[in-house]
Amino acid sequence: MKVGTDHYRSIWLEGGAVRIIDQTRLPHEFVVVTLDTLEQAATSIRDMWVRGAPLIGATAAYGVAIAMRADASDAGLARAHDVLIETRPTAVNLRWALEEMAAFLGPVAPEDRAAAAMERAGQIADEDVAINAAIGEHGLTVIRQIAARKGGPVNILTHCNAGWLATVDWGTATAPIYKAHQAGIPLHVWVDETRPRNQGAHLTAWEMAGNGISHRLIVDNAGGHLMQHGQVDMVIVGTDRTTARGDVCNKIGTYLKALAAHDNGVPFYVALPSPTIDWRVQDGVREIPIEERSGDEVSFVQGKLTDGTVTRLRISPEATLATNPAFDVTPARLVTGLITERGIAPATAAGLAAMFPDRVVGR
Amino acid sequence: MKVGTDHYRSIWLEGGAVRIIDQTRLPHEFVVVTLDTLEQAATSIRDMWVRGAPLIGATAAYGVAIAMRADASDAGLARAHDVLIETRPTAVNLRWALEEMAAFLGPVAPEDRAAAAMERAGQIADEDVAINAAIGEHGLTVIRQIAARKGGPVNILTHCNAGWLATVDWGTATAPIYKAHQAGIPLHVWVDETRPRNQGAHLTAWEMAGNGISHRLIVDNAGGHLMQHGQVDMVIVGTDRTTARGDVCNKIGTYLKALAAHDNGVPFYVALPSPTIDWRVQDGVREIPIEERSGDEVSFVQGKLTDGTVTRLRISPEATLATNPAFDVTPARLVTGLITERGIAPATAAGLAAMFPDRVVGR
Repeated sequence: MKVGTDHYRSIWLEGGAVRIIDQTRLPHEFVVVTLDTLEQAATSIRDMWVRGAPLIGATAAYGVAIAMRADASDAGLARAHDVLIETRPTAVNLRWALEEMAAFLGPVAPEDRAAAAMERAGQIADEDVAINAAIGEHGLTVIRQIAARKGGPVNILTHCNAGWLATVDWGTATAPIYKAHQAGIPLHVWVDETRPRNQGAHLTAWEMAGNGISHRLIVDNAGGHLMQHGQVDMVIVGTDRTTARGDVCNKIGTYLKALAAHDNGVPFYVALPSPTIDWRVQDGVREIPIEERSGDEVSFVQGKLTDGTVTRLRISPEATLATNPAFDVTPARLVTGLITERGIAPATAAGLAAMFPDRVVGR
Repeated sequence: MKVGTDHYRSIWLEGGAVRIIDQTRLPHEFVVVTLDTLEQAATSIRDMWVRGAPLIGATAAYGVAIAMRADASDAGLARAHDVLIETRPTAVNLRWALEEMAAFLGPVAPEDRAAAAMERAGQIADEDVAINAAIGEHGLTVIRQIAARKGGPVNILTHCNAGWLATVDWGTATAPIYKAHQAGIPLHVWVDETRPRNQGAHLTAWEMAGNGISHRLIVDNAGGHLMQHGQVDMVIVGTDRTTARGDVCNKIGTYLKALAAHDNGVPFYVALPSPTIDWRVQDGVREIPIEERSGDEVSFVQGKLTDGTVTRLRISPEATLATNPAFDVTPARLVTGLITERGIAPATAAGLAAMFPDRVVGR
């Protein structure tokens, strides 16, 4: 999507070099990094210069391709896999991308691997773009209906960053927003800041500003009040993991917004590429373990001083510890629809199974 | 309450001098300020060194008393009123305290006014302490019941700071917590950080630490998840304004916690001195105008650098504006009970009228 007047993907080839945006520097600095070595690719994932499941997967694929330029032997291929898999051990897309690259490159002669790997990595990136574009088209139909019914700008609330920065392009939750904006539908986006890591304030707000989309930053506390007063027409969020019956595990606080949407009759949509559906899990609240992250993410806030220095501040007493669950589960009963690359499914076991008959597994 | 080993009120007399805590410096510095002049008292209210309706009222009363030492004439009395009323024009307790002091001092001979004013200000402070202590005793019965049923620590979630720092002592939402702690009931308090101004992280966490009460800071997004997993036994919050039917206008985000409590069968209590009940208002969502504060409160966060400097950081892009509603309304249907100085009333028009038959007004 756009960064001002230029179009970017979150990972791209430029004169044969793989480039990414160091997302830890956003929104205060826009820094492009060239990945020249396997180690740099691993660092970019480990230190969260890139984040978001689809982008992590694409970066891992390009990381293997970069490694093949230096050492295309079987040992080099194994080493690329081993170095990259350690960077974010729980990331499902990372594992998938590395297994895909290994399976694809294994039969290829070493002298052809570098070129083949770069081509396959490019395909993986393009496939992500195509999936998100399809999500955008399906979500656009919902926005179009609201716009037709309402007149005036469609007010959309989103939580965290399920934006183009988290994917290769378009994003998941943001794809319908970008498609609607391009279709000329007047929009206004409420951006939850999304404590503790402030991905909304740091990334989603920056995306919206870069694409000229009317938006306002709000604290995570504000959405319920806005919904009570008719200032939200729909909510769209992403998901890290979706259960077979449509429960949604997403960034902490998503559940509170879903409750408020339900209480006020506001449609609550979740945008997801179908690989985030975990067909073996039904009851998300009971079955999905929630990652507890460092309390320092709560006790400290990152931002920019008036002199331009980016640093962090302690906001709480030294004697106070923090508890920091990173995700929560929104029960399917609160979800209006699941916007997938194949269409919008009801958040029910039957609805998902009907849309993905080739994927559903028995219990 | 305690600050480590010492007991403090939020405003007190020491050797004839009126002292307060500069709450803008908490939690990073504990600074006691002596109010020697009317202008200092006015500044302490205007610049929010003191905040919270009851404490603002008590400070205004002491401010009149301080002014009487310098000029006890009728003109001096009028001037004290005029200077103080301008500091926080919408604060109901401020207006009430100033009118009370004017009515009380008017008939007193000027040479007796300084002493009489100091005595009356002391009474106003003591009355606030008594009201909050009574709220604490009534709330204690609820905590005691939960403790008896449950065994193990009672987990209480609170939002914002309705603590002793917002009153003269005890606080409103915190009074039952302090009473239960003093009664030896094991407690654990979840402290919502309460963006955008972080009163939970800055003040409530500091209060809990100072009184040796087990607590953890959490982001405002986390409470729903904790409730889904049985980690919250009750919620207690304060209120700025309560309607005759029991709707509660409190710090932004309170409504979201009430929704989550309702969805998970967690009791949701609101602690309030009865003067916060506005008997002329019924439907809080429709009738109470919500203050919109500066978006800078959202875009910037205050805290302490590693070198000890207290400063603020920008967290969002310069191109992004913020919208900042300061309060929201929790409908009475989500409120388990209203803990007042007279007892716990159901959050209904009938429940409140039965407890305050002397106050209720017709429509």
